Amino acid sequence: MNLSDIGERGAIEEITGLLDSNHPDIIAGPGEDDCAVLKLDGDLEGKILFASDMLTRSRHLPQEMPYSDIGWSAVAVNLSDIASMGGTPRFLTTSLATPDITQQELRDISIGMNRCAREHNAFMVGGDLCKHSELVINCSVVGLAPKNILMRKNAKPNEYLCVTGELGGAGLAAKSITKNLEIPRHTKKKAFEKLFRPQPKIKIGQEISRQGGGAAIDISDGLLISAQQLLNASEVGIQIHTDRIPVDRDIKNAAGKNSITLKQLLEVGGDYEILFTIDDKDKIPSSSTVIGKTLQRKVVMFGDEVLDPGGYDHFK
Amino acid sequence: MNLSDIGERGAIEEITGLLDSNHPDIIAGPGEDDCAVLKLDGDLEGKILFASDMLTRSRHLPQEMPYSDIGWSAVAVNLSDIASMGGTPRFLTTSLATPDITQQELRDISIGMNRCAREHNAFMVGGDLCKHSELVINCSVVGLAPKNILMRKNAKPNEYLCVTGELGGAGLAAKSITKNLEIPRHTKKKAFEKLFRPQPKIKIGQEISRQGGGAAIDISDGLLISAQQLLNASEVGIQIHTDRIPVDRDIKNAAGKNSITLKQLLEVGGDYEILFTIDDKDKIPSSSTVIGKTLQRKVVMFGDEVLDPGGYDHFK
Repeated sequence: MNLSDIGERGAIEEITGLLDSNHPDIIAGPGEDDCAVLKLDGDLEGKILFASDMLTRSRHLPQEMPYSDIGWSAVAVNLSDIASMGGTPRFLTTSLATPDITQQELRDISIGMNRCAREHNAFMVGGDLCKHSELVINCSVVGLAPKNILMRKNAKPNEYLCVTGELGGAGLAAKSITKNLEIPRHTKKKAFEKLFRPQPKIKIGQEISRQGGGAAIDISDGLLISAQQLLNASEVGIQIHTDRIPVDRDIKNAAGKNSITLKQLLEVGGDYEILFTIDDKDKIPSSSTVIGKTLQRKVVMFGDEVLDPGGYDHFK
Repeated sequence: MNLSDIGERGAIEEITGLLDSNHPDIIAGPGEDDCAVLKLDGDLEGKILFASDMLTRSRHLPQEMPYSDIGWSAVAVNLSDIASMGGTPRFLTTSLATPDITQQELRDISIGMNRCAREHNAFMVGGDLCKHSELVINCSVVGLAPKNILMRKNAKPNEYLCVTGELGGAGLAAKSITKNLEIPRHTKKKAFEKLFRPQPKIKIGQEISRQGGGAAIDISDGLLISAQQLLNASEVGIQIHTDRIPVDRDIKNAAGKNSITLKQLLEVGGDYEILFTIDDKDKIPSSSTVIGKTLQRKVVMFGDEVLDPGGYDHFK
């Protein structure tokens, strides 16, 4: 049996099943949430958040992507993990395995990383560098947890299901890289901005936490997989009203003209928005949209359609 | 100009020069030490240590290396960064980019990581997994700093220069992979144990800190480069007495028989021991050896020889 047989989720279950992480200081451990939630020292009140995300040239970083955006993204995907817990990012390390790129390309990566970190009040504090056949960049982040930590497992039935921002832009951009699509120039620009320069939703994550939000997850793997992951962690079902999903009008039009369905857009990752639940309609932050609700029955409904719980898998 | 022109150290200086890490909560930032030293929250007294190390198949992980040792090493090299600050490791994440290995190989990596973490009272708490052409494994570690943090910059002239354990084993093993050497079987076993299963010196690092040690660095890149790095950070010189360097007798004999000089052994990385300074001879931990002293004049003396400040570079 190889990884391609057991799949990415099978592999993650395999690893997490072998790790001995049962300790009162570990509030959320391997595979449980967007970040690990930890007590650093028995005496201290506060909890920290700790996460790592790795990007590789062949899987996440298309040749079209400027080096500054590569640096930005490597940091942004980690900050997004902090955002979806309602936390405050503090420090990041980066490990860079790289071919013999130019000094200017290295500078651009560094400037992109630094800019994304500083725009979100976090700092790059260390890392590692080594030579490699293909660009691989890993960032790790440490942040402070809020009082109300937005854990995936917190969802309860009959809550409002909401999403921040607008979806579909990253999906359209990703599809236009692999297929020759006809997209108006300004729409293309908008879509690629979403894919190449994801904006971690730190402030709105904190607002959701303060407003008493329940569960949250960043939809880095696309809305549909993220909904499935929320279901798996929380033991609730999810009803998504397809007509309420916020998609930019230009993105929607361009998708339609290229015969890309809404579902196909949402199966693609890269929209670093937050999917969350909250039980009080009056407390939903204004910059987010109610797209459905949580159910008793453990199923993800996309409109009238019951979704396959398997979904997208990187290894299979 | 490419990275191969500016070299690894040039590249690291390029990156760190572009990062904006000037903040009172950052006690040691990018490129300064084995770990970043950080205040997590302005109100709290304690400081944390944060580091990342990446291993790639083609540079650090020979085909001969069992998968369990790959997992062990990925954790050990990070714990060694904590050890050389005198700290206490707490939590690790791991990001694994991997070809389509078998389920058992993945298990072995996970078991090796977990074992190394648990033997040093740390926990694996999360990470990332993706498909890649070559095995790349990055771990990041968060730990607690001691009161007396063994920072590289702390060395002063006229201190004792000491090293933990015995050196040369990893160097001999590494050389025997690239060249056909004649080494007795039990010596080979000893040498490979050192290269493939490095033992992070957590307890002795803590002891050095308690005993009032000055500067420390883990000699992951070999004694000679580490001495140079200590010099660069501390503005002191270093005199190494070559006849006092602790090398296992079997390793020394095998090196001699294969015409490998002591200096050649020590130019190779992989001996995860700690090089440190201390000003009181009576306080040197018993499991370490005085191998020289720090000097006023900024130079590394290996016996009578003045070492080239360039040393080994991964990119050039």
